Formats: sequence, C-alpha cells, structure tokens
Amino acid sequence: MSPFNASGLTGALFADAEMAEILSDRRWLEAMLDFEAALARAEAAVGVIPTQAADVIVSCCQVDLYDIVEVGRRTTLAGNPAIPLVAMLTEKVREKDAAAAEFVHYGATSQDVIDSALGQLYRDAEQKVSTRVAACAHALADLAQIHRVTPMSGRTLLQHALPVSFGLKCAQWLDAIVLSHDQLMLRSGSWLQFGGAAGNLAALGHDALPVLDALMRSDPADARNTRSSLAFTGRDTPWHTTRAHIQAFSMHLGILSSTLGKIARDITLLMQTEVAEVFEPSAPGKGGSSTLPHKRNPVQSVAIVAIATRTPGLVATMLSAGMQEHERGAGGWHAEWDTMRELLLLTGAASLHMQTMLEGLEVDTERMRTNLELTNGLIMAERVTFALAPALGKAKAKTLLETACRMAVTEKRHLRDVLKATPEASALDLDALFDPSTYLGASDVFIDRILDHYESDQRFMVEKTQIYSS
Amino acid sequence: MSPFNASGLTGALFADAEMAEILSDRRWLEAMLDFEAALARAEAAVGVIPTQAADVIVSCCQVDLYDIVEVGRRTTLAGNPAIPLVAMLTEKVREKDAAAAEFVHYGATSQDVIDSALGQLYRDAEQKVSTRVAACAHALADLAQIHRVTPMSGRTLLQHALPVSFGLKCAQWLDAIVLSHDQLMLRSGSWLQFGGAAGNLAALGHDALPVLDALMRSDPADARNTRSSLAFTGRDTPWHTTRAHIQAFSMHLGILSSTLGKIARDITLLMQTEVAEVFEPSAPGKGGSSTLPHKRNPVQSVAIVAIATRTPGLVATMLSAGMQEHERGAGGWHAEWDTMRELLLLTGAASLHMQTMLEGLEVDTERMRTNLELTNGLIMAERVTFALAPALGKAKAKTLLETACRMAVTEKRHLRDVLKATPEASALDLDALFDPSTYLGASDVFIDRILDHYESDQRFMVEKTQIYSS
Amino acid sequence: MSPFNASGLTGALFADAEMAEILSDRRWLEAMLDFEAALARAEAAVGVIPTQAADVIVSCCQVDLYDIVEVGRRTTLAGNPAIPLVAMLTEKVREKDAAAAEFVHYGATSQDVIDSALGQLYRDAEQKVSTRVAACAHALADLAQIHRVTPMSGRTLLQHALPVSFGLKCAQWLDAIVLSHDQLMLRSGSWLQFGGAAGNLAALGHDALPVLDALMRSDPADARNTRSSLAFTGRDTPWHTTRAHIQAFSMHLGILSSTLGKIARDITLLMQTEVAEVFEPSAPGKGGSSTLPHKRNPVQSVAIVAIATRTPGLVATMLSAGMQEHERGAGGWHAEWDTMRELLLLTGAASLHMQTMLEGLEVDTERMRTNLELTNGLIMAERVTFALAPALGKAKAKTLLETACRMAVTEKRHLRDVLKATPEASALDLDALFDPSTYLGASDVFIDRILDHYESDQRFMVEKTQIYSS
Amino acid sequence: MSPFNASGLTGALFADAEMAEILSDRRWLEAMLDFEAALARAEAAVGVIPTQAADVIVSCCQVDLYDIVEVGRRTTLAGNPAIPLVAMLTEKVREKDAAAAEFVHYGATSQDVIDSALGQLYRDAEQKVSTRVAACAHALADLAQIHRVTPMSGRTLLQHALPVSFGLKCAQWLDAIVLSHDQLMLRSGSWLQFGGAAGNLAALGHDALPVLDALMRSDPADARNTRSSLAFTGRDTPWHTTRAHIQAFSMHLGILSSTLGKIARDITLLMQTEVAEVFEPSAPGKGGSSTLPHKRNPVQSVAIVAIATRTPGLVATMLSAGMQEHERGAGGWHAEWDTMRELLLLTGAASLHMQTMLEGLEVDTERMRTNLELTNGLIMAERVTFALAPALGKAKAKTLLETACRMAVTEKRHLRDVLKATPEASALDLDALFDPSTYLGASDVFIDRILDHYESDQRFMVEKTQIYSS
Repeated sequence: MSPFNASGLTGALFADAEMAEILSDRRWLEAMLDFEAALARAEAAVGVIPTQAADVIVSCCQVDLYDIVEVGRRTTLAGNPAIPLVAMLTEKVREKDAAAAEFVHYGATSQDVIDSALGQLYRDAEQKVSTRVAACAHALADLAQIHRVTPMSGRTLLQHALPVSFGLKCAQWLDAIVLSHDQLMLRSGSWLQFGGAAGNLAALGHDALPVLDALMRSDPADARNTRSSLAFTGRDTPWHTTRAHIQAFSMHLGILSSTLGKIARDITLLMQTEVAEVFEPSAPGKGGSSTLPHKRNPVQSVAIVAIATRTPGLVATMLSAGMQEHERGAGGWHAEWDTMRELLLLTGAASLHMQTMLEGLEVDTERMRTNLELTNGLIMAERVTFALAPALGKAKAKTLLETACRMAVTEKRHLRDVLKATPEASALDLDALFDPSTYLGASDVFIDRILDHYESDQRFMVEKTQIYSS
Repeated sequence: MSPFNASGLTGALFADAEMAEILSDRRWLEAMLDFEAALARAEAAVGVIPTQAADVIVSCCQVDLYDIVEVGRRTTLAGNPAIPLVAMLTEKVREKDAAAAEFVHYGATSQDVIDSALGQLYRDAEQKVSTRVAACAHALADLAQIHRVTPMSGRTLLQHALPVSFGLKCAQWLDAIVLSHDQLMLRSGSWLQFGGAAGNLAALGHDALPVLDALMRSDPADARNTRSSLAFTGRDTPWHTTRAHIQAFSMHLGILSSTLGKIARDITLLMQTEVAEVFEPSAPGKGGSSTLPHKRNPVQSVAIVAIATRTPGLVATMLSAGMQEHERGAGGWHAEWDTMRELLLLTGAASLHMQTMLEGLEVDTERMRTNLELTNGLIMAERVTFALAPALGKAKAKTLLETACRMAVTEKRHLRDVLKATPEASALDLDALFDPSTYLGASDVFIDRILDHYESDQRFMVEKTQIYSS
Repeated sequence: MSPFNASGLTGALFADAEMAEILSDRRWLEAMLDFEAALARAEAAVGVIPTQAADVIVSCCQVDLYDIVEVGRRTTLAGNPAIPLVAMLTEKVREKDAAAAEFVHYGATSQDVIDSALGQLYRDAEQKVSTRVAACAHALADLAQIHRVTPMSGRTLLQHALPVSFGLKCAQWLDAIVLSHDQLMLRSGSWLQFGGAAGNLAALGHDALPVLDALMRSDPADARNTRSSLAFTGRDTPWHTTRAHIQAFSMHLGILSSTLGKIARDITLLMQTEVAEVFEPSAPGKGGSSTLPHKRNPVQSVAIVAIATRTPGLVATMLSAGMQEHERGAGGWHAEWDTMRELLLLTGAASLHMQTMLEGLEVDTERMRTNLELTNGLIMAERVTFALAPALGKAKAKTLLETACRMAVTEKRHLRDVLKATPEASALDLDALFDPSTYLGASDVFIDRILDHYESDQRFMVEKTQIYSS
Repeated sequence: MSPFNASGLTGALFADAEMAEILSDRRWLEAMLDFEAALARAEAAVGVIPTQAADVIVSCCQVDLYDIVEVGRRTTLAGNPAIPLVAMLTEKVREKDAAAAEFVHYGATSQDVIDSALGQLYRDAEQKVSTRVAACAHALADLAQIHRVTPMSGRTLLQHALPVSFGLKCAQWLDAIVLSHDQLMLRSGSWLQFGGAAGNLAALGHDALPVLDALMRSDPADARNTRSSLAFTGRDTPWHTTRAHIQAFSMHLGILSSTLGKIARDITLLMQTEVAEVFEPSAPGKGGSSTLPHKRNPVQSVAIVAIATRTPGLVATMLSAGMQEHERGAGGWHAEWDTMRELLLLTGAASLHMQTMLEGLEVDTERMRTNLELTNGLIMAERVTFALAPALGKAKAKTLLETACRMAVTEKRHLRDVLKATPEASALDLDALFDPSTYLGASDVFIDRILDHYESDQRFMVEKTQIYSS
C-alpha cells in the first residue's frame, strides 16, 4: 500500500525502499524501545531505579519480542502506540523479574516515548535525504561548469527573452538546492522529549534533572542497534505543545520539494517535443509508450512534480495542527505522526529521482542553438538596441529596432539580414552581435558566486555525509 | 505501514481494515485487470477483436497471476502501473495464444485503465463510508428524540449563553451529517474513462463508439469477482484532464470529515474535567492513562479531530493538481492517486470512530443541569429581561437586569434571589422563569424539521445501503 | 488596497471593479441593515413589535447614515461588526422614537445578521461569476464548432502523442466549465440565518416560527435598494455551526478556479515561442516587454494561473474553519468572512479574464499543421501500425514501425518516406494515412455530446442570467 | 475593503492601521520609485549613465507624482505594475530632459523592481511584527516569574492530569514565541533583486557587476524618504525563480501565527464559563453581548485563532507557487504578491492582539486552586502512588490507589479522606502530599532555562528594535 510502501503497485515513484525502511512502523517501534532502554539506563545511573531492574528492562527492549499487529490492535483503543507498548514491555519484564516491572517507563509519559522515537526516525530520514540532495548539488555543480558558456534561450513567462547559458540555469538550480539543503540540515535533529505526564517531570521529584541530563547524554553505542540512534539533540525543556521546531523542519522539507519541483517542471518543459533540449537519462523500460513509439515521457520529473504538488498540503497540515491545547493536544499532535512520515518519504523519493536524473541528464546543445534561431534573431534585438544607443540615443535605437523587428516578422526574414540593409546599423559588426555565446552578461560571475557558496557548503555536506555513513 | 495500513502500529486510528482492503494495491490491480477483461469482452462483442482472443485475455485477468512487487518494480521506470501490467498481461496471453496477444489493451491508454480502476475502488469505498455515516445519522436521530427536552448550557465562543436542549444539539449535528451524506452520495460513482492515447479513440476508428457503449454497459456479473465492480457510471466522453467531478468527490469527503471533526471537537469539550456532560463509550483498555487513574481520555474524538486536521490539505492538493496540461497531465494526475486513497481511508476511519462513539455515547443529564447553574442564574437573564419588557419597556428591563446581574456576581448570590428582592420583578413567577427546561424556544420544531429531512433522506440511505450490500 | 480593491496597483488582475463593489464593506453594511429592516417588518407583521417601531427602524436602515470607519473602530473591541452596528442603529432609532429603540434587532444575534448579510453578497457575487462563466462557455462552444476538424498535436505528458482536433480540445475545456458552472449554481444562494443567541430563538417564545417564516418570505421589493437583495433561500433551521453548505459553495468556487487554471495553463503552453499555436487577444499596452520587442506575454492566462494557485489554500481554510465549537464558534466562523470574499473576488477576476481571452482568442491553424510535422511523421505511427495490423498482425506491424521510426529519427527523414521504401507498407495509401485531419477518431461525437450537455445547460444559464439582470 | 484595510467594517481584527500602511499600495509604489532612483544613482556612480540623467530621474521618483489608480488601470493590461510605472516615469523624465529618458530603468526588468520593492515592505513589516512579538515575550517573561509557583491544573487531552504552575505554562508559551521570533528575524531582509531581462544582466555588459555592487551598497540616506528603505541585504545573484528564501520567510510567519494561535486557543479554553481562570483584559465596549449580560467573550484570542486558521493555506500557496518556470514564472510569482502581504498583515494583527492581551491578562489564581479540587483529589493520585512506592512497591501502590480512586469517585469523597482511612497510607503526611504547590516538579528549572534563552534573545530583540526605531 502506497505512500509508506515502496513495494506496492506504484513502486518507488513516491517512496523508495530505503526511506520506507527508515520510516517504517518497525523502526518506530524499535526507536520507542530504544527510548525505554535509554530511560532505564539513565535512571539507574542516577540511582532512581535499581541497576538490576534497568538491566532486565534493557533486555526486554528487543523489537523482535513484539508483534506490531498486536500493539496496533490495542492502540485503536488506547489512542497511541506507547500505551500498549509500555504495557507489553512491563509484562515481559514482570515475567523475568516482578520487581523490575515497577520501573518500566518510570516517570515518563506516552508523548515522551513517541516524540523522542519519531525524532530518531526523522533524523535518520533527513540524513538520507541530505545525502541525496548533496549528490544533486554535485551533479549540478558539474553541469554548471561544463555548460558555463553553452548558449540557450532564456525564457520568461514561457516566451523566449534573451540568450542565457545553460550553465547559469544549472547554477540557479544549484543555488536553490544549496539554500534548501542548508536550512534543512540546520533544522533536523533527534529532539529528546522528556516531561512526564504534565511536562514538569513532577513524578521524578529531585531526580528529574539528573535523569533528563543523563538521558540527553545517552550513548548511541549502548543502543541495541548499531545505527546512530539515540543521539539526542536540541531541547533542554519539554515541548509537548510547543511545536515550532518540528514545524520548521516540516517546512524546510516542503521548500526542498518545491525547489526540486521547479527543476523538474523546467525539465518537463525542456523535454517537450517542440523544445527537446534536455532529457531525462534513458533506460530500458523507461518512459516509453505502448502505442506511441516516438514518445519519450518525462517519468522522473513527472513524479517529482506530483510530489511537489502534494507537499504544500502536508506542510499546511503541520501548521494547522499547531494549535495544541494546554499541556497535551487533543488531535493536533496525532495529526503530525503520519504527516511527517509522508512528507519525509515524498521528499526522499523526489530527491532520489532528482539525483538519478541529474547524474545522467542528456543535454542537446545543438538543439539549444537551433531554438535560439526560432525568432529569426529577434531574441538579440535588445543587444542591438544597446549597441546602437551610444550613436543614436536609446530612444531612436529602440524605434529603429522596433521597425526592423516588425519587418523581420512580416517578411519572415532574419533580423540580422533586415539590419544589414539598414544604413544606421551598417557600422555595427552584426554577425558578432548576433552570436548569443558572447551575450551572456554576468553569467560567469554569477556561476562562480553560486559555485563558491556551494564549495563552502560542500565541505559541510561531505563531512556530514561521512559522519552519517560511518 | 501506516496510512494505508490498518495493521500497523497505529492500528485503526487512521485506517481500518475494511477500508484498507477496499483501497489496497491488490484491489487496484484487480480492478485494472477487470477493466482489461471488460474491454476485451466489449471489443469482441462489437467485433473489433476475435472472441477467441477475448476469451484468452479474460482468462489471464486473474489477480493471483501477478506479483504486485514486480509490477511496482517496473512502474518506477514506466511512470505508472498500467504500462508494466499491460506488458505482463500481454506476455501471459502470448504464452497461451500468440495471436490473442495483439488484442490486449486494444486502443486503450494507461490512464483509461487506471482512472477506471480507481473509480471502482472509490465507489466501493464511498459505499462503506456512506453506510457508516447512515449509522451515525441513525444514532443522532435517536439521541435527538431522547434528549428533545434535556436542558444544557448553550455555549457561544465557549461561554455559557442560554439553555439549549441536548436534543437540538444532536439534531444540529444530524443536520450537517445528512447534508454531507447527500452531497457525497450524489458525487460518488465509478466513472468510466476511455479515450485512447489522446482522448479521441482514434485507433479504434469507426468502432470507437460501439466499444465505448459496450464498455459502459459491462455486466458486473461478467467480472471475475462477485463484487459490484465494473458498474460504470456517469461520463460519456473522456475526461483525462477534466477533473472537476473527481475534485467535487474529494471535497465532499473533506466536508464530511470537517463535519465529523466539529462533532468530535464538541465531544472533547463536553468531556473536559470541568464540563463532564458527555462521554465516549468506555471499554476495557480504552482511553486510560498509565499514571493518571482518574483520566478518561477522548480517544475516538481525538482521532477524528486529527483526521479533520489532515483532510483540508489533501483536498487542497486535489485542487492544486487540477491544472493538468493539454491532453494528459505531467504530474497533476499522478498526485491524485494516493491523495484520493488517503482521503477515503481517513474519512472512512473517522466515520467508523463516530459511529462507535455515537452508538454508545454516555450522557450525564444531571451534570448538564448542574452546569446550567454555574452562572448563578445569569444564563437566564435574557429570559427575565424579555419577561419584564412588556411592563417596563425593554430598555428599562435591560438596565434593571444589568444591575441585578452585577449584584449577583459581586455578592455571589443567585440572580433569582437578587431579583426576588427587587420590587419591579416581584410580579414575575421567578421560579418558573428560572427553569431552563421551559426556555428552549423553537427547539422542538427545529428538531422536527431536521428529523424530517433525515427521514426522507433515510429511506434513500437505507435503500442505497441495501443495494450496496445485495 | 489590493485583494479587495480593484483600483490599486495591481488593477483588475486579481479583483475587478464589479466584483469588488458587490463584495465591498459598504455592501456588507447595507445588507446587514437590510436584514435589520426585514426583521423589523417581519416582527411587525407577526405582531411581535409595534408597526410604528418597525417603521422607524426601517427608516434608520439607510447605509449612508453610518460611518464604516466608526463601525470598524468599535468592531475591533466588539469582535464582530454587528454589535456596534446594532448599537448605532439603536441610537439612531432612539433619537427618533425612544420606545422603538427597544425593538431593534429583536430576538436576533450577531451571527444572524452577519451570515444573512454575507449570504446576500455571496449570491450577488455568484450571479456575476455565473454570467461570466456562461459567456466563457458560449465562446468555447463556438470555438468547438469552428475548429471541429482543425488538426493539431495532441500532447500527453507534454510530448506529442497523436493528432487531435482543436475543436475537441475546446470541447473538453467546455465540458469542465459546464460541470463547474452547474455545481456552482446549485450551491449558491442567499441563505437566511436566524436562530437568536443560542440557535433556538428562545427569546421570541411562541412567535419564533411565525417571525422566521415571515422573514424567509421577505419581499425584496421592500428592501431599501432595488437590487435582488433579501430573497432568502434554502435553510429552515439555524446553521450557526453547521457550515457544510457554505463549505460546498466555497469548494465549487475552488473547482471553477482550478478548471479556469487548467485552460489558462494550456494557453500559456500553446503561446510558447516554440509552439505559437494559440494567443491571447492582443491589445495596445498588453503583454509587451519594455526591452524585448518580440515578446507576447500571456498576461491574462498568467493572472488566471496565479489565481488558481491561490484558491486551493483558501478552500482548505474553509474546511479547517469547519470545526466550530458548540453553538457558536470561537475563531472558525471569523476565519470565513474574508476567505469567502477573497475566493469570490479571485474566481470572479479569473472568469472575467477567461471570458475576454476566449472571446478574442487567436488561433494559428497553419502553425498547428506545421507543428504536427515536427516529429517527421512519427506522430502518425500508431495509425500506420493499426492499418498494417490486419495484414501483418499487430505484433509484426509494431516491430516494422519501430524499425521505420528508428530509421526516420536516425536519418532525419520523414516516416512516410521511410515507409514508402518498405515493401510491407507499399500496399497502403501512405499519403492518406499521414493526413492528420482524417485521424481524429471519435472527436466529432465527443464534441457533439459535450455541446449537447452545454445546450441543455445553456438554456438554464441564459434564463438564470436573464433573471439576474432583470 | 477588508484584509488590506484597517479602516473597514472589521476594524483592526485582521489588519491594523500600522501594518496596513506599511504594506499599502502607496508604499509599494514608493519603494518601486526608490529602486529606480537608487538604480539611476548606482549607474551614474559607475559611469553607465550620465549623472545629469540620474539627477533628473531621481527628481521624478516622487510618489506623489503618480496616480495609483492610473498605474493599476494599465497594470491590468501589462500584467504587472512595473511596466506602466516605468513608462510613466520615463514620460515624466522626458518632459524634463529628453536625453535622460533613455536611462530610466536602464538594464533592469520588471521583476527586479517589484521583488526589490516588496522586499522593502516585507522588511518594514517584519520589523513591526518583531517589535510586537518582543513585547509579547516581555509580558510572558514577567508572567512566568510572577506565577512561578502558582498551581493550576495541568490538562492533557483536555482532561485534568497533574498540577502545573501557571508560570511554567507562560514559560512554555514564551519558549515557542522566542523560537518563532528568532527564526523569523534570521529570515527577514530586504533582498535586492537585480538580474535584467533574463537574469544575467546582459544588457549592462561589463558594467553589470559594478552596478550590482553599487546598488547593493545604496545608502538609505539617499532615499527620498527618511525611513530605512533601500538597505538591501542578502543575495549577490539574481533569484527570479529561486524562491526558497522568500518561502522560508513566509513559513516563519506561518509558524509564528500558529504559535500565537496555540496561546490564544489556550486562553479561550481558560476563559470558559466552567474554567474561568484567565481572562483577556476588559475594556469598555469589549467582548460584551447585547442580550447576554454575563458573557465575557474572548474577542482578541478569537481573532488570533481565526488568523491562525487562515495562515496555513497562505503558506501552502507560497509553496505551491514555487514551481516557477525557467527564467521567470508564468503565474507562480504573481501569486506571491498578495499572499505575502496578507500573511504579514494577519501575523501583524495577531501579534498586536497578543501583545495587548498579555500585557493586561487577568489571572484568577484563586479559581485555579478551586479547579484543582474538581477531581476530589484524584489529580494528586500519581504523587501518592510514587510516595507509597518505596514502601509497597510501585505495582502494589498503584493497585491501592486505583481502589482508593474508585472509592472516592463512587462515594463522592475526597481522595485524601479515603486514603486517611486506608492503613497502608497512614504513614504518609497526606495533607502535605495533597498540596499541589509542592508538586511542581522541575518547573522551576524549566522556567529558568526558558527565561535564560529569552534573556540572550532579548538583548538581540531590544537592540534590533532600537535599530529599527532609530
């Protein structure tokens, strides 16, 4: 079944296997058990509960001991999965050591377990997304370099405007990617939630803060699994109904999706039969049409556009869900769980599509040149106007060009040829002026500036990626 | 895993097993095969393809012959699940009868299969939702009758305003339910999509319309399965990029969710410790808190509020997705698939929660009476003002009441007692005037009107439900 | 200033003068006064208040007697504009007749006035929108007829697929328009709201229903102004927190905007420099670029796309606002006021842009022909495959065409020429087969069916429009 | 008329005069003229245009010389307000000095003017919002200190859970405010947009970068007005279709609104007749009901909740609008203008309401105490359980408490009294255990931590505010 499922009918269009695994119910369950184990350890370290009890609790925090379906069955009545899980964990602990059962989930509340556990999933998911986005950025930086002076039609409101370089277009895409990536990374984190039933850890009395601090310092190496779980970050007070940071995280996912959607839409437009300048990489079985042999459908960019169409509503949900009542919300919080997971899955899929697409992007520079001629030189009119301005004045130059353009259109001639027959323009080197590759303005500097931003960011990207994968 | 999964960690909070089955990938695949079988039959009937070929094709349209994971794997490259499915079906047909393989999916396009198949799922899902909503309406009609003259505090802007009857409150809830239900039913339908590659069935030549008509008349009994599949309705021209009717369907799901959310929010408010007038039915393991023995958490209404928080974003997505390009969209259409399924799942879960809740709703009429006294009689001030008006004039009456109210507040006395000591009010039967059960206005008639609307609707509800289940 | 202002910097891009006037604060104020006058008349007719008092009240319900700024100033404190308006009206009545002042707003509540008044504005605005949409439909019906057999490239996923007729494209646009228009008209209406402070008209006692009925029958001719105000429709019980019908109205505006957005996006795509098949009507000062003489910017379709981008969020707001507490909501209702007005303004502007655009649409049928040749005949491959199938079998035919297509692409030759040199295809009349105007499939019938829907709808459109304008 | 109008019927509910002025069409026009003046100055400084021409241009950049209505009239045709404004400015310059007219808007494009001008408005608006939010934070910090040990009922899922301190509740509100405020400030800025017709400043040739740099360094003091206009920040390359930073800005406004909405919803709940613990400040004419003398309607918090209901849709629009085509978008960009202004107006109004409300918040600490007793001591059950645990074991303690709680509920006795009669609890100092003010857990430390965050932030808040107002 689709959005949380990369092995359904829609395959990896909207969710891929890696992301689906990271955000799976099994991982959520595991992360909840990790929290309970870490809590027991922290409380034993501080002396709130016996070390012996903690050991038994930790030994029962093995995900394979629990049946997700059974937890779910009870969740329907309980209202959240932490309640049945804690009950089942307590039962298992009791079977081993009745005394230890009293210390399960000691002083914590359901939302502590769930928020802290989901935070682990979010962090893992964000790392995966970030790695993919870094690869997109890398591919774009290469394309910007390679096509630094490849002229193509710049299009505004879907009309040819002036020549631009394809390298600048790639650099602009890179600019948005780097911006989105930075913001996302700064937001991500595996926030610890620990406040007890009403957010003040009252049940723990004087031990509250030592336990909170010990929990914050939980060593990932202690966690049952070897992933980077349980490296909590970010918050030193409870945030049961203070959701601003999680909202900000959701929004940067939304922005990233929107950015990827912009690039993907551009690619669908560039792949149009009439334009045919840029293409998704081809692959056997990809993008074909059963009955139309000539078609080359934009499969991945279409999936990305679909995702970018879906994410704004999910982000709006995270905002609407923010008005959570008093010390614990009656609905808003519950609306977050699947919304965040869906947002991460979709953004993850979009970034993977984009990575694959950019790493194999096919660019037809010849066609770009051909298309530049579609207006019979009118696309260069601005340049000629500015070139004539010093001699004629800008107003007169403009009028002259307007006349020449009209003539070019009416007579279906190239503007260059019309101008060659125009005395006022005879002093100009028209052939040179009509060469788009010498009319790319500040492209070079703009590309460099964006690449510079990327370079400084890249080190961070690479380092962070290395940390992640180590 | 979660939203499309009723057997995950969140159990049936946001998706129940019945709805999840109806909207499953397996059912989607089955409905696509049903379409291909019906198409082959229709084309054989018209003489476009050989009957023998149709028979072979139909024999291969068995869902168990296909591996969803394999279809999905190829979908990732193909861009939609119809392309690999048609390829796999053709392969299976070819194995039996090479000649017949040429007639698989004859003249159809991917979107024909997918839209028609999803329409079957939507119709089945709408039937399930409608049955549940009808049960909610039934329960509310009973409650409106039973509590026709049960006085409680009417609350505006969360402040006590005037007494109302709990029966009228239930009738108002019923009113919105009936309205939502009607609109939803009118919209639902298993729309046939059949236009071929560019929406004009060009490949079928003169046979196009006979095939379209034969397809529209497809006998559900012919379908491989015994469900009411393949009873197409509603559209006699293709609608590949004309999505108004499916958008309208999505929106009525959104309205229904919002209506259920309003009722659920009211119940969370009525369950507040300070109010305690109405409660979700209790059940073992339901709504308890591990550490707080006195709590009675509003589990089902909270799930409904969460759902009503999530659905507006999904409806907005259906609207944003509507700007689909030319003859077939590049992203908008793809954004619809999971959005519609999620919307149906969520609305289905919300209506089931509501049904369970209303069928066992606990009402504390005594507490309602007690709460009516919370303002020390001020809630009856309007009535006394109007009662005094004929004698004193409304202005004077109002001034007198304002003074009396202030005195009641300051001296913490009951307004009735203050007024008993006020000469101008001595002529009134104050005990009678302060009886809220005789100050319910036109409640009775309003309840009757709404019940009348419900009665006429109910026959339709029942009939339609019977048709569905027959 | 902007969205509610057609005389600001953005002119009529997002709001035109007619709609802005209909939805202005002045009209809202006027409609509130109309309600108070009608209420006084109804109550006098029933005998609840003296006829003399009603006369004085009616005489004070003149919009020019009130200063909007002053009402607004007090609204900030009061929380809604009805409270200060009633106070100011009462004051004015008192000045004329102290006794009559007691009967102002008798038995009503703020929400009664505001909902009933806004309903009048919504109805007037819907009429204006509907008239414009009817004009769009008319223009499209003409275009569908005129271009019934004008061939152009059908485009799916932005790729050339098969030839279609431009008439069918227009008919498909018309189909969505007619659907949206119908649904919208059925929803619109000037709903009467009358429930008193807690929705049961308790203050009016036994007179409640007679007053409600008299109010429902209010004669527009009695209203101070000569517009069709105060023709209430639709609801016979209060609906203070039952918003399903107003949500449905909002959504049909959203669907209409989305439909208009789809058409507009198609036009922006068709106006692309590389496509250049269809153009917005030109006008002096329209769509030009200061520095780029050859550009012809899609001004109106861009404004429509912008509007269709904005409306989904507004519709989502109407759904989110639906969870209104108890007998009167604490925020949700207040969120509706400007959201509905903005939605109507935007949809109104979009429909006016569309009307202007369609009534003067420029169609370059020659360019459509030229573009059909862009694939060197590959767009006709499906047809040739089907034509060869009877003789060769579909599989063999498909293989042959695939080879021919590859050859055409590699050698940059026209597919027709490649096929002419292919023995197996020699029996075919290739010139005839490559004529797109004879490969339009069931276009003709589909156009007729949609025009038929439109015809039956049109009578209704015209009649309703006449009623409106009479 | 409403959203952009603080002098309409809804007064300052959704837009106040200060914000409306900052975001007015007049200010927008002025900021566009400021840009043109600064551009002329920068180009003269670099030597691209004659100083004399720049002087004439600057002299014509006076807002009073232009008629907004006339600009708007032409905008309808032109598609954006920069086109007619530049034409009108050129005309005025030409009247003074024909030669200078050639240098108006030299090398710039419409979007350069509009984005740069709107950035000025956004910055001014953000400053105003930030100042108000800083005042909210100040008020909350005071409340957190004052009510540090004021016990009240902590409520989870709208049920009494445990005692909390009202100071901690205020600190939690403050926490979210500080977080929102920080993020917002980091995002705000008056981004310079300068890229020319296709984003590479081609028309300016080698002078492009010097002009860009000179423009970036524009001295606000040069600007015609004395406000802080034209202090550009943030971007050193064009961003015509790279909207991530403006999306991030919009989202932090959305988060702030959501945060304010959460606080406001809490206050509406605390003002309920049944709760009555906290009240909006009262004022003459505020929150009263014409017919219900005892009501004290939550006017300002209701307006804030309404705003927080509206903003998520606007943020979603900013995300949906992000897929802007190629070098300049066909609709997405245009959707931003009014969306951003509305978002700022709404957030501005919400923050002003919140400031007023918090600065005069009425807190009934006695009622808080009374409400704590509503459960007859059950709210203290957790504490007693933990107190008994060392002696009895947690399991046994829990069972004992469950029995006692049931007895307390059934016999309507206080839990303390039930326990006093229970031998196992006799060793406890029950009177002390049932004092909520000594069961506030880590509240004190959490309050301190949040106040510390605020303190460090406050300096920044104050400094920035001073800079703003200087």
